[in-house]
Amino acid sequence: MREMFDLELESVQERIVEIADSVFSIVTDASMALLEADVNAADRALLGAEGVSEKALSLDELVIRTLALHAPVARDLRILVSTLRISASLERMAALASHIATIARFRFPDSAVPEALSDTFDEMARLDIRLCKKLVKLLKNTSVDLARSIQAADERVDELHREVFEIVLDKKWKEKAVQTVDVTLASRYFERIADHVVDISSKVSYLTTADWSDNDLDD
Amino acid sequence: MREMFDLELESVQERIVEIADSVFSIVTDASMALLEADVNAADRALLGAEGVSEKALSLDELVIRTLALHAPVARDLRILVSTLRISASLERMAALASHIATIARFRFPDSAVPEALSDTFDEMARLDIRLCKKLVKLLKNTSVDLARSIQAADERVDELHREVFEIVLDKKWKEKAVQTVDVTLASRYFERIADHVVDISSKVSYLTTADWSDNDLDD
Repeated sequence: MREMFDLELESVQERIVEIADSVFSIVTDASMALLEADVNAADRALLGAEGVSEKALSLDELVIRTLALHAPVARDLRILVSTLRISASLERMAALASHIATIARFRFPDSAVPEALSDTFDEMARLDIRLCKKLVKLLKNTSVDLARSIQAADERVDELHREVFEIVLDKKWKEKAVQTVDVTLASRYFERIADHVVDISSKVSYLTTADWSDNDLDD
Repeated sequence: MREMFDLELESVQERIVEIADSVFSIVTDASMALLEADVNAADRALLGAEGVSEKALSLDELVIRTLALHAPVARDLRILVSTLRISASLERMAALASHIATIARFRFPDSAVPEALSDTFDEMARLDIRLCKKLVKLLKNTSVDLARSIQAADERVDELHREVFEIVLDKKWKEKAVQTVDVTLASRYFERIADHVVDISSKVSYLTTADWSDNDLDD
C-alpha cells in the first residue's frame, strides 16, 4: 500500500512540474506578445492557459482520489493539501499571463507599452520568466538557495511595479488614457505572477524544512 | 467517531460563515472608504483583512487535522477540500478589498473616484456588498435560487467594469493619469471580488447538487 502511495505521490509531483513548465512557456509567450507586439505569441499564451486549467483540474482529482484511498497523515497529508494550493496558484498565473496576452492582442499591430516604459517592462518580464523557470526547478528539487533567490527577484519585481507608477504619474507622461490603463493592468499582472511564485516557494520550503510528525495533530 | 466528525464539520462550516461575514464587513468598509473618502472606514478594512488571514490559516489547520483524524471519503472529503479553496478565496477577497481601501487612503482627503465615474462605482460597490451578503447566506444554507442570483449580479459587475474603461477611454475623459490608474485598479479589484463570490458559489452548488458516492473514486 505504501509503495502504491509513493508512486502516486511521485505522479502528483511530476504533474505539478509539468504544469509549472507550461506556465513558464505561457508567461514567456505573453511577455513576448506584450514586448514585441507578437500576435502569434499572444495566441499561444491564450491556448496554453486553457490547457493549464484542464491539467490543474485533473491533478486536483488525482489528489482527492489519493487522499480518499490512502488516508495519509502528517507530512504526506500536508504535501497533498499543499499540492491543491500550488495547482490553484499555477492556474491563476496562467490566467494572469493570458490577460497580458489579451492586452497585447487588443493593441496589435501597435505596442501596448510606450517607449518611456519599455526598459521597465522588459526587466519585469525577464524577471517573471526567470522566476517561473526557477519555480520549475524548485518543484523538481527543493533547494533553500533557490527559494532565497526567488524572494530576492520578487522584491525587484515589486520595485519595478512601483517604478511603472512613478513614470506614469510623472509630469513628463503624455500618453493617452488607453496606454495608462494598459500599463497599469499589465504591471499589476506581472507583479501578481511573481507573488504567486513566492507563495508557492514558501509552501515548498515550509514542507521541506519543517519537522513534521504525527505530533502536529496536537498542535 | 462519526458523531465527532459531524461536530467538526459543523465547526468548519461555522468558521467559514464567520470569515465570510468578516469579508462582507471589509468590502462594505472599503467601498465606503472609496466612495465617501472615509479614512476611518479604510483603516477598519485594512485591520479586518489582517484578521481574515489569521482566521483562514487557523481554519485550514482545523481542516487538515480533521482530514488526518477521520480520513473521510467521498462527499465528506470533497466538502473539506472545497473548504480549503473557499477559505483561500475569502482571504483573497479581503486582500482585494484592502487594496481598494489603500487607494482611498492615498488620495484622502480627496476622492479617488472622479465625478464622471461616481455612479458606476456606486453601483459596482453596492453589487459587491450584496454579493458578499448573499455569499454569507449561501454558506449558511445552500439554495439554488441564491446561487443563480449571484451569477446574475456578477454579470452586471462585469458590465460595469467594462463601462469604467469606456468612460476612461472616451474623449471626454480629462482626468490626470493618477486618477486613471486609481479607477483602473479599483474597478479591477471590485470585479475580482465578484469573481471570487461566483467561484465559491459554484463550488457550493456542485457539492450540494452532485450525486456523490464512493464510486467517484473510480471515475
